[in-house]
Amino acid sequence: MSAGDVRPYLELLAERSRAVGSCLCLGVDPDPAALPRGLAPDVRGVEKFAQMLIEAALPHAAAVKVNIAFFEAWGSAGVAALERVRGLVPADVPFIADAKRGDIPSTAARHATALFDVLGANATTASPYLGLDALVPLLEREDRFVYVLCRTSNPGAADIQDVAIGSEPLHVLVARRAAAWAERYPRLGLVAGATAPQEPAAIRAAAPGLPFLVPGVGVQGGAIAPVLEHGPVLSGAMRELPAGGLLVNVSRSIAAAALNSDEPEAAIAAAARTWAERLSSCVDRV
Amino acid sequence: MSAGDVRPYLELLAERSRAVGSCLCLGVDPDPAALPRGLAPDVRGVEKFAQMLIEAALPHAAAVKVNIAFFEAWGSAGVAALERVRGLVPADVPFIADAKRGDIPSTAARHATALFDVLGANATTASPYLGLDALVPLLEREDRFVYVLCRTSNPGAADIQDVAIGSEPLHVLVARRAAAWAERYPRLGLVAGATAPQEPAAIRAAAPGLPFLVPGVGVQGGAIAPVLEHGPVLSGAMRELPAGGLLVNVSRSIAAAALNSDEPEAAIAAAARTWAERLSSCVDRV
Repeated sequence: MSAGDVRPYLELLAERSRAVGSCLCLGVDPDPAALPRGLAPDVRGVEKFAQMLIEAALPHAAAVKVNIAFFEAWGSAGVAALERVRGLVPADVPFIADAKRGDIPSTAARHATALFDVLGANATTASPYLGLDALVPLLEREDRFVYVLCRTSNPGAADIQDVAIGSEPLHVLVARRAAAWAERYPRLGLVAGATAPQEPAAIRAAAPGLPFLVPGVGVQGGAIAPVLEHGPVLSGAMRELPAGGLLVNVSRSIAAAALNSDEPEAAIAAAARTWAERLSSCVDRV
Repeated sequence: MSAGDVRPYLELLAERSRAVGSCLCLGVDPDPAALPRGLAPDVRGVEKFAQMLIEAALPHAAAVKVNIAFFEAWGSAGVAALERVRGLVPADVPFIADAKRGDIPSTAARHATALFDVLGANATTASPYLGLDALVPLLEREDRFVYVLCRTSNPGAADIQDVAIGSEPLHVLVARRAAAWAERYPRLGLVAGATAPQEPAAIRAAAPGLPFLVPGVGVQGGAIAPVLEHGPVLSGAMRELPAGGLLVNVSRSIAAAALNSDEPEAAIAAAARTWAERLSSCVDRV
């Protein structure tokens, strides 16, 4: 994909969120241990399930996020499958490569090539642990976007992310620092997990203008109300976006609908519609 | 590769460090913008350069570390090349997949499959930001090993890793926490960059028993003396290892020897020999 072919991520996201009336992000994380009946637990089964999820749920999704580890686990054949799966998402739907990369700048430049140029992702996720210079090769791409990990949704996230820095946890400091980075590199948002109800509010206060990508609702048990309340941006240019730039990712709760179903496509579509409706109020209110 | 085919990483590393009399880790990060004359700046050129580096430098290397981003940047064709390159490293030389992964446990399990089972790496690198549960799928593999990022070698590392927690920087807290994790999951070491001379000592004091993988000497400018002084472990089971488990990575300083050379293989071999000698005292002293 050559420069100039790709519309800016937030423009794409705004249009698509408005079109579907929801901030649902369809998560595609096909686990070979949880495939619908009739699909083999191999790279072909995983690719077919990803295709089924995208085709059935797409009408309800403001964006599609693929955790690329579920394809990398099959080696080069898996990455080839990922490249085909990416091709199933039309250009007007934002495609997020959930990669959680983080490396020194010379390596991060290769990540930018892999994720943005070769895979054609509109956005990606990245770790803050290596600092701003390690993010710059991703952030300097004018048509793309980076969600920096702030508070993740796993139980162990507290080990490091909640370490107290004075009166606040590290992840709030990360949010504040990322907000400062965004003054220079505005194509930056945060991954803000939903699994601890006080967190979206604290992160939002530290970074009032940064769009959130929120994992952890659904199977992981995160509550939706605080996310819809504190998820949309409060200030800055992104306040005009539908849902205030918010995206709420749902992966396993939608995928699980297909398991043990005689009509997995219909079950996926119904689950995606239900989730899109639950996540529609944030679009209406803006 | 099925379970039981692979010797424990530290056993492999000990034997190989002793055999070569050095703690040099050959870094293979083939950048298409810095290839020897005659190699095209494409995935084939990158693969050929990786092959040249491994074949010419292997006699001097205690381990080989490939930063897999330099292959992932070419998509599925690049990952296929990586798989072939991995096959060039014999089973008695530890192969480290420098991947810097970090994700929630269900995803980390897929990383373990990708890196350990499919690629056949003996060890990998991983981020501490998501906490212990995100590392467990990597750490619970008895024959493999995980170097957790503690202090990286890039200028921006200070942004987050040096945030003050009381009187110490975050990366020292990470080292101490990793040392606690290692009591339960002993196949754990640290990435401890060489670019700030006081750091190896402080990290070593916080984690006296954890093996270090040290990037940042050579092109990045890190000093060798403090690394050789504080790099080897001070206590615990790994004290018996040659070099106290230390590995010092050199990538670009060896690769650069091949550029503009009429005999790139010979130039690589000479550079690797020089670096192996500089990094030999740590093996002698144990």
